[in-house]
Parts: sequence; structure tokens; C-alpha cells
Amino acid sequence: MQSNRLEAFSDGVMAIIITIMVLELKLPDGGYSFAELWHSTGIGLLTYLLSFAYVGIYWSNHHHLFQVVRGVDGAVLWANLHLLFWLSLVPLTQRWLDQSSVARDPTVVYGINLLGAAAAYFLLQQAIFRTPTGGDLREALGRDLKGKLSPFMYLAGIALAYLVPWAGLIPPVIVALVWLVPDRRVERYLERTAGTEADQ
Amino acid sequence: MQSNRLEAFSDGVMAIIITIMVLELKLPDGGYSFAELWHSTGIGLLTYLLSFAYVGIYWSNHHHLFQVVRGVDGAVLWANLHLLFWLSLVPLTQRWLDQSSVARDPTVVYGINLLGAAAAYFLLQQAIFRTPTGGDLREALGRDLKGKLSPFMYLAGIALAYLVPWAGLIPPVIVALVWLVPDRRVERYLERTAGTEADQ
Amino acid sequence: MQSNRLEAFSDGVMAIIITIMVLELKLPDGGYSFAELWHSTGIGLLTYLLSFAYVGIYWSNHHHLFQVVRGVDGAVLWANLHLLFWLSLVPLTQRWLDQSSVARDPTVVYGINLLGAAAAYFLLQQAIFRTPTGGDLREALGRDLKGKLSPFMYLAGIALAYLVPWAGLIPPVIVALVWLVPDRRVERYLERTAGTEADQ
Amino acid sequence: MQSNRLEAFSDGVMAIIITIMVLELKLPDGGYSFAELWHSTGIGLLTYLLSFAYVGIYWSNHHHLFQVVRGVDGAVLWANLHLLFWLSLVPLTQRWLDQSSVARDPTVVYGINLLGAAAAYFLLQQAIFRTPTGGDLREALGRDLKGKLSPFMYLAGIALAYLVPWAGLIPPVIVALVWLVPDRRVERYLERTAGTEADQ
Repeated sequence: MQSNRLEAFSDGVMAIIITIMVLELKLPDGGYSFAELWHSTGIGLLTYLLSFAYVGIYWSNHHHLFQVVRGVDGAVLWANLHLLFWLSLVPLTQRWLDQSSVARDPTVVYGINLLGAAAAYFLLQQAIFRTPTGGDLREALGRDLKGKLSPFMYLAGIALAYLVPWAGLIPPVIVALVWLVPDRRVERYLERTAGTEADQ
Repeated sequence: MQSNRLEAFSDGVMAIIITIMVLELKLPDGGYSFAELWHSTGIGLLTYLLSFAYVGIYWSNHHHLFQVVRGVDGAVLWANLHLLFWLSLVPLTQRWLDQSSVARDPTVVYGINLLGAAAAYFLLQQAIFRTPTGGDLREALGRDLKGKLSPFMYLAGIALAYLVPWAGLIPPVIVALVWLVPDRRVERYLERTAGTEADQ
Repeated sequence: MQSNRLEAFSDGVMAIIITIMVLELKLPDGGYSFAELWHSTGIGLLTYLLSFAYVGIYWSNHHHLFQVVRGVDGAVLWANLHLLFWLSLVPLTQRWLDQSSVARDPTVVYGINLLGAAAAYFLLQQAIFRTPTGGDLREALGRDLKGKLSPFMYLAGIALAYLVPWAGLIPPVIVALVWLVPDRRVERYLERTAGTEADQ
Repeated sequence: MQSNRLEAFSDGVMAIIITIMVLELKLPDGGYSFAELWHSTGIGLLTYLLSFAYVGIYWSNHHHLFQVVRGVDGAVLWANLHLLFWLSLVPLTQRWLDQSSVARDPTVVYGINLLGAAAAYFLLQQAIFRTPTGGDLREALGRDLKGKLSPFMYLAGIALAYLVPWAGLIPPVIVALVWLVPDRRVERYLERTAGTEADQ
């Protein structure tokens, strides 16, 4: 089976997730000054920025995955839906985080959400590795240090939240910054194998 | 007519259905602990998981349908919109189910919604069978036992809800689990006819 | 310019319009019986069904338009955005109609919305006629009686609403039923010109 | 890397932004006459029209950008996500503007939002210029006077808002009208280079 519809569906889900989070941001209740906006919406905007970056990173990585691999099977379909399920919870957990002004339990729940998405992404990669052209992806990703270390950072964030709630967001922010540095692994792989690509 | 826009539109509608259900989930009213989250959102999360699985299964099956058949006519367009109508009601019926903490009538309404979607899917298959390449789909689906038994399970669920409300969700959960087992009928059919596919 | 992105964007907008209307439907306030559901949500469901049918009809006609014509210019882009603007108001006017339980002014506003969408669709067709391949569409549509009579029906509905509010919805319902009959003009045209199509 | 998924994702995000703004428009609270609709929703409709026009213009320009350039790299992905971030804030800032009935600070915040989107669009163009086929875009855009003057208009709007709040919307309205005049630069470029295009 071809992957184009899986990509289109995933693009749709991630585009909606990224956009509806703004609907949840609360505005000042009757006041119309900068100070009131910052007071009521400031934390919401910052956590929205973090969640936007995460969904953007997943979209970008997802995009790279399916640049290399084209054929998918039923296992990949379900592994992908599993990833989308975790991502679809981000607007909920980020709303709770925002409402609580970054309290302990909401920060932990947000971290668990990121951890679940990371695990789902890992399982999706494994499912792709088992498809006929999956070996190409394995080669393109190499050792995948970033992918392997991220879950430990989320765990560190969950632990930190028990000490100081807002400190629990520091590791996720660091992970996001690390992923934001353009990842040229897939591009380099595509350049190396440009001969093969030219046949598509 | 080609089916690509029908697929894109359906992907869009199903992507939105799956995502906006999270907007409806209610969060604890002012409390920020795990216990309060579980109390206010626990049932919502479980019914959301069920609804997510159903929309995911419909998307996956829809995807398989149109892997086999490419040309569509006006009857298929409308049969498809009919299916999307029933699926678009899922966020509404699942919200009522959640608000009621799985009371009798909401469980019955949820079951009727699943039954309507199943009937619409059946009609969509029939409409596709009548298109020029519809015979391929009929062959690929075979006896379609799962498709034929699912409506009876939903009816059983509706009946059970009159005894014990939450028991009415057991048959839908079983159906979802049965469909989650990757269905290799279409993939096997595509493999068998790989020669034809190579011409596309 | 090719029309594929215009189609994808329009599919996205129409898919969202069709789906978010369900978010607006109100559920019984604390009651969980069929009677309460019908009392609070019955009219909403019926008007939702009408609005769903209208957006579905526009999507289907839009789909047919761009099956025939592939190249678009800036004027078509803007005529298309103009159509999407009127369609994007449907969730708002249908919500007001529903909240008012079909009162006079909301029914008139709903009729104006349908009239605006019909005018925008007419302008879109004219803009397409002026593109290089627009003559094909003009030939495929023929005299377009349905398209030309629909606005008069909406006007009749607006007039009727001043006598009996709910009677103002009868003409729009008739128009929807007329359009729901599969329209084979474009399909027939595509069959006739199948030789040309095979070159694409 | 090809740009098709970047386009599809951006189409999805912009389609949702344009559509969910209608969800935010408030309706009369219990009254069902034209006067009450105008009183409660009039300003909202006008600011919605402005925001719709802006997102439509960005979509149209974005569409033109990627008609010329096909290959993208990681920097373009992120520059594009940065643009989508600013656009995703439009429903929030337009809602605040509407709630305040165009007060000073909300008008300034709306202007800052437009300024941020313009800056992000500028950075996206720069990122595209640096791709292998970016020179074609630079040639197609020419001196890009409209693009270069728009930010100064937004700044003028922000300054005007400190004198008379609603006057701060005049420059954005003028910019929107200027951009609404079909921009034939990219089309002309595509015509001139039609020979090259025929190879695609």
C-alpha cells in the first residue's frame, strides 16, 4: 500500500491539533489592557508555544520518515494512529497545565503525554523498519541518539516536577530546542541515494 | 471520476472528528490533582479512546476500500457523504455518553450511532460494487464476515444497555478489538494482483 | 497554475465547516433521556442535517467543477475564497437558527447566507469560464437550470419566513433534495471526452 | 525534499484557522431580531471579514511561492512553521479585538500579530531563496514593493491606534485591499518560463 493517504490523514490531524489549542487559551475577563492580557494569557501563550513546537517537531520528523519509506502495511497504519492518539491528547494536557498555572500534577501529566508520544513514535519507526523498504530508513536514521535520549529527558522532567513544578518543563524545552536544530540526516541520506530517487 | 478528492475530503472530515472530541472533554473544575483528573475526566478519556478507535477503524477501512477501487460516480459520492454524516455525530453522542457517566439512553444513542455508521458503510460498499472496477473490491473483501456480524453486535449492545447501562458498551468494545487486528484481506488481494497494480 | 492546491484548501475548509457544526449543537442540560434529547437537540439535528446537505452539495459540485477544469488564475482563487467565506458563515447562521427554534429573522438570515453562497458559486463559475479551459466547463454544464433557479427558491424562502417562520425552510429543503439527485452532467461530459482525458 | 506535504500541512492549518474563527463569534444572548444580531455580532463579523481576508491572502501568496519552488530543506520547514505559528494566533487576537469592540490595546496586539506574520513570511522567502531553485522565486517576485511596504503600514496602524483605537485598523484594511488586487507576478513568471514548466 502507498503511504500518501496515511500522510494526508496525519497532516490533517496534526494541523488541527496545532490550531485548536488556540481556542482553549483564555482571554482577560472583561479587561482590555496589556497587563490583563499578560496576567490571564501569558502562561497559556508560553505553554502553547511549547506544545506548538512539539507538534511541529513531530510533523517534521513524520514528514522525514515517509520521505524515505513509501510502502506501508496494516501494522504501520495502526502504529501511526497510536502516535496520533497521544498527540491528540496534547491540547487537553496543555489546557490543564495552563489552567493550573503550571502546578505539579498537570506538569507530570504533560510529561507523561510527551513520553507516550515518544514511545508511540519509537513503535512507529519499528513498524516501518519491518516493511520491505524499511531498511533504508534504518540506514538514514543511523544511531538516532536524539530519539533515544528524549524519553530520559521527559522522565527527568517528571521527576523535577515533584521538586519544583515549573522546573519539570525545563527538560521538555531543552529537548524541543535540540530537535529544532535542523536535522539533516534524512536529507543527507536522500542526497546520497539521489540516483535511486530520480527513478520515482 | 477519480477518487482522490473524495479520499482527501473524507480524510479531512475524519481527522477533524477524531481531534475535536478532545475539545469536549471536561477538566476538573479548579482542582489540579490526579484524583480530581481521574474523577472528572476518567470516563471521558475511556469513551474518547473507544470513539477514537472507531473513527480510526473507519478511516483504515475506508483507506483500504479506495486502495482497490479508483473510479467513483455520483452514487459513491453521496454514499460516502452519508457515512461521514453518521461519523460526524460521534463527537455529539460520545459527549452525551460522557456527560451522563454512561447512563442508559445515552448508551443506546451511542449504539444507534455506531449502527447508522455501519449501515452507511455497507451502502457505500454496495455503491462501489456497482462501479466499473467494483468487482475487484467484492473479490478482495471475500465473505466479509466481520462486516456482516458487527451490526448484530451493536444491536446486542443496545439490548444490554437496558439491563445494565455500561454493559451496552461491551459489544462495541469487542467489535473494535476484532477490527484492530490488522485485516490483511485487501493487502493480500493487492499482492495477488500486483501485476495489474504495476501499470498504475 | 494548477488547481490541486485550491481543491485541497477548499476540501479542508468544507470538511471543517461540516464537522464543527456538531460542536455547536446543545445537549440536554443535566437530563439523560430520549425525551430531553429530542426536546433540546431535535431542531438542532434537523437544521444540522440541512446544513450538512448544503455543504455536501457544494463540495460535490465544487468537485465536479474542477474535474473538468484544471488550470486556474488569480481571479478563480479569489472567487473561490469568496465562496468559502459564505460557506464559513453557515455554522454561525445555523447556530442562530437552532438557538431561536426557527424564528423569523434567523430564518431570513439563513436564507441570505444560502443566497450569498449561491451568488458566490455563480461568480466562481463565471471566473472559470474565462480561463483557457473554461469553455469545456460551460459545455459540460449546459443550460444549468438548477443553478439558475436555486436563488429564486431562496428568495421565496425568505419571503415565506415573513408569513410563517419555519415555512421559510421549505424552499431550501426542496432545493437540497433536487441537488441530491445525482447530477450526471459532468460525468457524461467526461465520458464523451474520454479520449482527451486519457492524455492527462 | 519535495514541498507537497509542507503545502498540504499549511493548507490544513490555514483552512482550520479561517474556519474556527466563526466558532468564536458571539450571537445575541436570547434575542432573535436583526437589530440584536447587528448589535452583538456586527463588529465581530467585520473583524472576521478582515481576518478571513488576511489568512486568504497568506494562503494565496503561499500558494504562489510554492508554485515556483518545489524543493525544500529543513530551514524552509521551520520558517514555514514559524509563519503558521503567527497565523494560528489570529483567531485569538481577533477574538480579543472583537470582545473589546475595538479597544486600543487589542488593536495594537492585532497589529503586532500582523507584523509578526509579515516578518515570518519575509523570513520564509529568504529561506526559500537559499534553496537550489530559490533564484527562480527571487526573479519572479521582482522588487516586491508590496511585501516591503506592508510592515510599515502595520506599524502606522499600531501608532494610529494610540490616537483613535478603530483608526488603527485602517492601514491593515488598506494593505488587505492592495493585496486583494490579483497579483500576476508569479503567473507572468510561470508563463515566461512555460518551456521549463512543461518538463515537470
